[in-house]
Amino acid sequence: MKWSQSMIVTLKEAPSDAEIPSHKLMVRAGMMKKLAPGLHTYGNIALRAIRKFERIIREELDQRGGVEILMPMVHPRELWEETNRWTEMGDGLLKFKNRNEHWFCLGATHEEAVTDYVRHDLKSYRDLPKNIYQIQTKYRDEIRPRFGLMRGREFSMKDAYTFDADQEGALKSYDLMYKAYQAIFDRIGVDYRIVQADAGNIGGSQTHEFQLLAEAGEDALLVSDQGDFAANIEVCPAIDPEPHVSADKEEKTLEKFATPNQKTIADLAKFTGLPERELVKTLFFSANDGTDPKVKDLKPICVLLRGSDEVNPVKLKNVLGLTNPPLMLTDEEVRQVSGASPGSCGPVGLKIPIYVDNGVTGLKNFIVGANEDGFHLKNVNRGRDFTETKLADLRMAREGDKCPVSNGRLKSYRGIEVGHVFYLGKKYSEKMSATFLDKDGKARPFEMGCYGIGVTRTVQACIEQSHDKDGIIWPKAIAPFHVHICALDPKDAAVMGLAETLEKELSARGLDVLVDDRDERPGVKFKDADLLGMPVRVVIGGKGLANNEIELVERRSKNVTKAAPEKAFAEIMKLVESAK
Amino acid sequence: MKWSQSMIVTLKEAPSDAEIPSHKLMVRAGMMKKLAPGLHTYGNIALRAIRKFERIIREELDQRGGVEILMPMVHPRELWEETNRWTEMGDGLLKFKNRNEHWFCLGATHEEAVTDYVRHDLKSYRDLPKNIYQIQTKYRDEIRPRFGLMRGREFSMKDAYTFDADQEGALKSYDLMYKAYQAIFDRIGVDYRIVQADAGNIGGSQTHEFQLLAEAGEDALLVSDQGDFAANIEVCPAIDPEPHVSADKEEKTLEKFATPNQKTIADLAKFTGLPERELVKTLFFSANDGTDPKVKDLKPICVLLRGSDEVNPVKLKNVLGLTNPPLMLTDEEVRQVSGASPGSCGPVGLKIPIYVDNGVTGLKNFIVGANEDGFHLKNVNRGRDFTETKLADLRMAREGDKCPVSNGRLKSYRGIEVGHVFYLGKKYSEKMSATFLDKDGKARPFEMGCYGIGVTRTVQACIEQSHDKDGIIWPKAIAPFHVHICALDPKDAAVMGLAETLEKELSARGLDVLVDDRDERPGVKFKDADLLGMPVRVVIGGKGLANNEIELVERRSKNVTKAAPEKAFAEIMKLVESAK
Repeated sequence: MKWSQSMIVTLKEAPSDAEIPSHKLMVRAGMMKKLAPGLHTYGNIALRAIRKFERIIREELDQRGGVEILMPMVHPRELWEETNRWTEMGDGLLKFKNRNEHWFCLGATHEEAVTDYVRHDLKSYRDLPKNIYQIQTKYRDEIRPRFGLMRGREFSMKDAYTFDADQEGALKSYDLMYKAYQAIFDRIGVDYRIVQADAGNIGGSQTHEFQLLAEAGEDALLVSDQGDFAANIEVCPAIDPEPHVSADKEEKTLEKFATPNQKTIADLAKFTGLPERELVKTLFFSANDGTDPKVKDLKPICVLLRGSDEVNPVKLKNVLGLTNPPLMLTDEEVRQVSGASPGSCGPVGLKIPIYVDNGVTGLKNFIVGANEDGFHLKNVNRGRDFTETKLADLRMAREGDKCPVSNGRLKSYRGIEVGHVFYLGKKYSEKMSATFLDKDGKARPFEMGCYGIGVTRTVQACIEQSHDKDGIIWPKAIAPFHVHICALDPKDAAVMGLAETLEKELSARGLDVLVDDRDERPGVKFKDADLLGMPVRVVIGGKGLANNEIELVERRSKNVTKAAPEKAFAEIMKLVESAK
Repeated sequence: MKWSQSMIVTLKEAPSDAEIPSHKLMVRAGMMKKLAPGLHTYGNIALRAIRKFERIIREELDQRGGVEILMPMVHPRELWEETNRWTEMGDGLLKFKNRNEHWFCLGATHEEAVTDYVRHDLKSYRDLPKNIYQIQTKYRDEIRPRFGLMRGREFSMKDAYTFDADQEGALKSYDLMYKAYQAIFDRIGVDYRIVQADAGNIGGSQTHEFQLLAEAGEDALLVSDQGDFAANIEVCPAIDPEPHVSADKEEKTLEKFATPNQKTIADLAKFTGLPERELVKTLFFSANDGTDPKVKDLKPICVLLRGSDEVNPVKLKNVLGLTNPPLMLTDEEVRQVSGASPGSCGPVGLKIPIYVDNGVTGLKNFIVGANEDGFHLKNVNRGRDFTETKLADLRMAREGDKCPVSNGRLKSYRGIEVGHVFYLGKKYSEKMSATFLDKDGKARPFEMGCYGIGVTRTVQACIEQSHDKDGIIWPKAIAPFHVHICALDPKDAAVMGLAETLEKELSARGLDVLVDDRDERPGVKFKDADLLGMPVRVVIGGKGLANNEIELVERRSKNVTKAAPEKAFAEIMKLVESAK
């Protein structure tokens, strides 16, 4: 493609709302343009990368028996009511009435739609297993869309769904998709980790996330330095590297003491001279997560943690059996429950369920708030001074914690979730009466799995992982063009002649070629070539040709070599082949 | 692909809401499944045809300098308000508020979005011309979706937009796209006509529709039997084959006469003994087409036509300069304007604008209603008895009318509109302040064109045009599979062995192959193969193999030939190559 004919418009500066490198670079390279918050037009260059990634996905899924279909983006309310997700999904599911006053939503995910698609057609165990996927635009009504295509409202996703006769089959299907995802992300050559994860409000028990490593990633990951263990911090078990046990052997007498103006754990540590991990903090949450609009009461609970630990809302959600993580009580609500402000609260005397993080088990004679402003209790002990509802792993794991499956230690990374595989079981099939007849002629609900890849997000994530100060460094597998030819003197017939010959020859070998034929200074063209980041740059100028040479630049290494024009084609092919 | 692995589910009967053959066949072949009215899931077979058609479109546009992008499907209200189409598009534009209480709509077309996309980036005449396209899902909130993908709510469209510096350039771009469309529809080998058409509420002056001929088509076309002239009936000039002139030479005296219970033109013709075309009927419309919600008054007008003619609402819309065709007045409104019921109305004495179809010009001493129930006037004459606001072509042309550009006669066809090219001029660029700097450094609005192809609609239209009583007959260019192998004894290793060898060999040559490996009777497989309609069917059975032969069936002709297994590959290749 000739630049002059294209619609590539590069910018020197990124807009102020672009916060992370990949977002800045994509806007500067003309790959995306905002129509409204979270809604972007994809320029031709972005679309080329997206299409190449889609093709890799299709090839890997098709060869594993995936069947591609396309479901609507607009869904009727009745469908989502069958699973109660019309309500459970909250405001992220965009709902509207059409001209005939019927309610619809924009598909944020397609479990309901696909289950409806198969439920009358897959009649017998003989029709199973089935693996169905689509690549479709999704819409999620993010409150604050940000990071470009990372957290947009409208985005493209590959979503796949498997239907099996039993759990064994479903786990085989899960494994097949897990391997397909490995093959897909291996093919684009990115640095990623497969981590244990939480199922969110999709449901399901077994689940892994495919996380592309990048500093700007929204997810915190913990990866063992021994063996394969890796988990999203949301679900990573928290195990102290060395068990932490209080020095005291005997329980002492409970005692109230004044702690005027000591509002935080840090204050209290300073005030008492004790380390934060010897103190116990009390947090308050509502076990009503709003998924049932008829339930209005607060359902307060409290959580005890060591002062040095952070609560993990996802672990808490799962312990409580909720669909969404519980919200913290407001100061006012805390006062209603405990009689004090949050800095002076504790478990002693509370009439609500008390959940205790297992980090607290090693403590004896610890300090908690007295439920009276400006006072704390010391020498508090579990069992004697309060009765806990449940002891559980409720805190955030952290770097240095012990690996739960080896003697290794956990290392911390940031990741961008680009893929997710879920074993769903019968959650959807039971609610939607999606059944087949088993060998004995008995109707049984399907065992399902669902599997997503953020198509547009992955393309941006690749840039987030692979760029330098000058611009994008495309992984070859999804590079919009393989070769970027800078024709320095486009009016020079010899220069454009060679550029066009190379374009033709390389295209005939299946390569995509961009020819910068603009009437611009070489410096402008080089800067743009660095910004756009195609694997191989070819520089053809009048002066060079006079010396019988052209210049080849490998984008990733910035390695420059010269070649005689008659050897250019072979040298370019070599460079492209060796590019990653 | 193996049938057993696919998600192909065929039906013996079509659902009752499928009215036309293509809709019935697509549902029966499992190509589409309704999620809600106007919303369909496309099965794998449909998607394969859609993707092949998309590829043809991309190839033809790319080689003519088209640049593919992808714009959002959700658009902010502010964008559509710039052109007033937020209101003008009416209820067909689906509008909703998001969680932050901002208004958006689902893109029904993308003129506004694309004009916004380029307006700050195409700065100079040197950046022009540009030809930008996308293939994107569209949503139009049809009141009564019907005919499957023909008039769905959600559908896929290829929409292209051109930007030029002047009208001459814009018409060149128009011509290029016209030729691209010819190439596209020629490649799928369908029978189509390019007809003059109305611009609807897109705007623009020059426009052609690409109409695929089919009896179930929603559009009436008139095509000359001499030369190239073809037009949608909406805009086809109406010219009597022989000029129709009254026998009277002199104007006679106006006279009122009683016509009790004569309500229709047919009644009156019978009552007076005159042919319908000697009578004049008076119709009433509102020139307020509702596009400006602040204008509430009726703006009544009347139209005079010969009794034998039908009014053409599109011609009337254009003469009145409206955005949408005007609505007829109700009987009550007619009475308010004329003092009589519709059957007794006429132009004499009316105080509203009177539009006269030019078919009336040949009449003298004609009969009209007296604006008094049960009475008509005879010997009425234009000019003497009433003053017309405008004489114009306001009637429907019909088969047998004279061709407006030759001595030929018009023949009537039914068509399905699959493509549309518009020259838009500055309608959008002026309203949206989308300008470039011309050679003199002066800001000028772009000259635009827009060009649509209904992707999903075309696929169905091909089936509507190409089928027989047994099923679909795919044009090869978009056939989901080229070859359909019926393995009659899938448990027979020799049968499946040959089927798989052929599948592999044919696939290696770029052909798509479906292997029916189900445990079903031959009759079921043959019926399904006819229904699905792939160009070449290959039948492999144990008995045949014992005689060293397999059967090849050409779907269109149903021609059956035999071949020895060792010659099968070559014979199949020959059949596929010769298929249309």
